[in-house]
Amino acid sequence: MWNMPPTDSVLQVLSFIAVAAQSMTAALAAGRRSMDWAGVCMLGAITALGGGTIRDVLLGHYPLLWVKHPIYLVIAGVAAFVTILLSRMVVRLNLAFLVLDAIGLVVFTMSGCDVAWQVDASLPIVIVSGMITGCAGGVLRDILCNDVPLLFRSELYASVSVVTGLFYATAFGLQLNDTVWTTLTFALGLTFRLLAIRYKWEMPKFVFSGEER
Amino acid sequence: MWNMPPTDSVLQVLSFIAVAAQSMTAALAAGRRSMDWAGVCMLGAITALGGGTIRDVLLGHYPLLWVKHPIYLVIAGVAAFVTILLSRMVVRLNLAFLVLDAIGLVVFTMSGCDVAWQVDASLPIVIVSGMITGCAGGVLRDILCNDVPLLFRSELYASVSVVTGLFYATAFGLQLNDTVWTTLTFALGLTFRLLAIRYKWEMPKFVFSGEER
Amino acid sequence: MWNMPPTDSVLQVLSFIAVAAQSMTAALAAGRRSMDWAGVCMLGAITALGGGTIRDVLLGHYPLLWVKHPIYLVIAGVAAFVTILLSRMVVRLNLAFLVLDAIGLVVFTMSGCDVAWQVDASLPIVIVSGMITGCAGGVLRDILCNDVPLLFRSELYASVSVVTGLFYATAFGLQLNDTVWTTLTFALGLTFRLLAIRYKWEMPKFVFSGEER
Repeated sequence: MWNMPPTDSVLQVLSFIAVAAQSMTAALAAGRRSMDWAGVCMLGAITALGGGTIRDVLLGHYPLLWVKHPIYLVIAGVAAFVTILLSRMVVRLNLAFLVLDAIGLVVFTMSGCDVAWQVDASLPIVIVSGMITGCAGGVLRDILCNDVPLLFRSELYASVSVVTGLFYATAFGLQLNDTVWTTLTFALGLTFRLLAIRYKWEMPKFVFSGEER
Repeated sequence: MWNMPPTDSVLQVLSFIAVAAQSMTAALAAGRRSMDWAGVCMLGAITALGGGTIRDVLLGHYPLLWVKHPIYLVIAGVAAFVTILLSRMVVRLNLAFLVLDAIGLVVFTMSGCDVAWQVDASLPIVIVSGMITGCAGGVLRDILCNDVPLLFRSELYASVSVVTGLFYATAFGLQLNDTVWTTLTFALGLTFRLLAIRYKWEMPKFVFSGEER
Repeated sequence: MWNMPPTDSVLQVLSFIAVAAQSMTAALAAGRRSMDWAGVCMLGAITALGGGTIRDVLLGHYPLLWVKHPIYLVIAGVAAFVTILLSRMVVRLNLAFLVLDAIGLVVFTMSGCDVAWQVDASLPIVIVSGMITGCAGGVLRDILCNDVPLLFRSELYASVSVVTGLFYATAFGLQLNDTVWTTLTFALGLTFRLLAIRYKWEMPKFVFSGEER
């Protein structure tokens, strides 16, 4: 399995892209709340790196990635700042963003599974670790923007992460060829996520109107 | 003192019940925000296990309970899911839920005191550790539901936890018989909480209308 | 460099004042949401000690300050409680509070830089550590009060922290005389913050009205 940060250059580049993409979408959310420039960059960094940070804190896996490699902080901050300057253009690139965000989800999920695997966690925790890495950054973003997290309300986002993690983790048990399996998982997760967006797949909702206790 | 998870089977069962009860009340809160099924299960697990998780992270007490014993994740997730299916019935069981939730508060508080005691924390930290374990999960639930935490606004919840913890921790100093003291603490905490609900005991509120700075 | 808690008595006193000041401003915010007395004290303690706590958790720097020295919890709790009793007077002291809060920001920032330096973090992480220590408590306060964090929206707060941290950290590299440099940094940071308040210096905002994706 590739390490964090991945030594393989393709995955390294993908993980940088994922950080940048998640930071840029968070910057747009910050702009909708009229945050100042410093706030935009902070929200971008927290969103892009928050998932991995929460995972590492929960697993006691120190030092954190961005503490060891502050370049990740720089990438996230610069990506958010560029978004301020190019916000009009960024909006037109909506489709590109959806793809980049999906890449981020899948790459983060796989890296989260890797980390849990390295610290000898059990299979359920490997899956949960992937899901936290892929999804928790967006939850932090929504909390800081004072929204109910999108993750809990709609779209197949957590589910994509779980399926990706399950598929990916199979290789740990079967000891399959790393590169092939990583590529397969990546393709599967990305396809699932893009199909879910395209066809607006959603989980059933639980609507409950009982009184507050 | 009993360990986490308690070796004593009664307390083991009580702690499972507590996790399930807290997850189910969180699931109802999720339903009020029309979360999807995955969101309901996530909110349930975060609420039920969040208090202990925050305590362990603050005390540097690794591995986390649910990382070591993923069965807790499963119980919380299943309890939330069952709540979706049986929401109408669950509501009618309102009284049962209040009791289960009170059991959760007391059991979590005692387990939090135990953990702090095991890592040689001082008495104030033992009490705070119990309070965090008992109360912080509900704070996470309210943050994720975009509410001001109920804990800070009304009902004797934190106070019950503090009183329970103080009473329980006395035994650490006096080296009293474990089983008897645990039972006594449990009865005291539960009674206090149920009386507080029954008679709507509340702390005085601090109402301040000065301007924002 | 002085340790946490600073051995030097002046800095020790300043750090106690900083904790009390941040707790008191949080108590006023709690009063605006009509929290009960226990909630006010909890919000005060979380705000005053939250920044240092998040920093220590992120850096894996255990035990936490308030776990080792519960006196900090007591100071924060008492300060919040006194605010309830004296809220009318506290408001009239608005100017004094702004100064105390500014002292808190600068003292916390310096202590955060110190801690990161002690665990051999790189320069960017030293700065970020100072910023988290100075600013994250206020973010927790705003999340718990169900607001978009003020930090992200207005006033030079994070920027003051970054400038203070940069200036302070220069001394680590140059091995300058501790006391002189600490005093200089303190004066610079405090002046910058007070000027920023006086003249309403603000960062430019990023206002974006594109649709939610």
